[in-house]
Amino acid sequence: MTTTGPTTDLLTLAPQTGTGFLLRTGQQLTVVDPTGGQVSDLYCFAAQDHDERLSSGRTIDYANSIYVTTGHTLYSNRSRPMLTIVEDTCGRHDFLLTPCSQDTFDLLYPEFEGAYHPSCLENLTSGLAQFGVVADQVGTTLNIFMNVWPEPGGELHIDPPTSVAGDRLVFRAEMDLHVGLTACSAEKSNGGVCKPIAYRVDDAD
Amino acid sequence: MTTTGPTTDLLTLAPQTGTGFLLRTGQQLTVVDPTGGQVSDLYCFAAQDHDERLSSGRTIDYANSIYVTTGHTLYSNRSRPMLTIVEDTCGRHDFLLTPCSQDTFDLLYPEFEGAYHPSCLENLTSGLAQFGVVADQVGTTLNIFMNVWPEPGGELHIDPPTSVAGDRLVFRAEMDLHVGLTACSAEKSNGGVCKPIAYRVDDAD
Repeated sequence: MTTTGPTTDLLTLAPQTGTGFLLRTGQQLTVVDPTGGQVSDLYCFAAQDHDERLSSGRTIDYANSIYVTTGHTLYSNRSRPMLTIVEDTCGRHDFLLTPCSQDTFDLLYPEFEGAYHPSCLENLTSGLAQFGVVADQVGTTLNIFMNVWPEPGGELHIDPPTSVAGDRLVFRAEMDLHVGLTACSAEKSNGGVCKPIAYRVDDAD
Repeated sequence: MTTTGPTTDLLTLAPQTGTGFLLRTGQQLTVVDPTGGQVSDLYCFAAQDHDERLSSGRTIDYANSIYVTTGHTLYSNRSRPMLTIVEDTCGRHDFLLTPCSQDTFDLLYPEFEGAYHPSCLENLTSGLAQFGVVADQVGTTLNIFMNVWPEPGGELHIDPPTSVAGDRLVFRAEMDLHVGLTACSAEKSNGGVCKPIAYRVDDAD
């Protein structure tokens, strides 16, 4: 699908980088795939208490679906709404897999021979460090635009994202949040080439 | 499938209860469904540091499957092996959904009208309280014998367990663990009736 709304005034995350920011209740976060075929990992904490954090398990349970899209709420581990998806022009995002990490590359991608590799876990942790977050606290991310699907027997496939240039996912914050966001670092998840991600925070109308 | 090994000397969890215990490196934990059709939720922490805990996302990622069975390793959020599945006579367990909680019943089961309901989250927290664990720390559980499957479009079905009397799942501990284990409290997940669960801890050979 093509972008029909404003995509001006976007901030850009360079390939294999990330950031962290405060998103206040009612503000909207727009995450845009500027080139198509690029994943962005998102994780968040309640700004007032980091013991409350994004929960894939609660969200999947309450959505009764492994996929989330427009109208779905992302829940915390305390079963409180954190984010609501208000627009989704892509329709395929993953909420099963943890952010790529040095361990991911070490365990799953022997072609890197254990060498240092940028990762979403490192970039989320760096982006959220300003709020005191450490890596142990980062759970399963919403992997925006990531195209993961299970066979009936459970085996997972990680295919190139279906997103095209300009596709976007828009969230409304249901509480004050500390948000970490990346341009995913894993070549395999991004059609072989890691590309930028764009995003914007808008105040409530 | 029928049980072919010893099931003597089992401890019993009454319906809608749970427990917590230390499982040392190399010990085996056997979880048995004594009647068939009953789910048991499991969560665990590294005994020496509760910031290291069971990670469904890491496990699913490294198994490349939403289902785990004999030979699969359950990983921590630090990508270290916590438990290895050494025997599985059932073949269907869930690792997508969080333990049932008061919030689950409030949000998903209006027939309970918001009244108190026993839950796996309460029982895991009670069982692990002796080690200082609180509810916020309990993430997505391995829901042993729980029969959850997604349609191609992502919608989840929670069907009665396929387990029959005597079916068991056996784990080997790869590090010292604080383990929480329940006889699941959610009628819907257990064919309409909550039943007991049996378990045993064996020392290494």
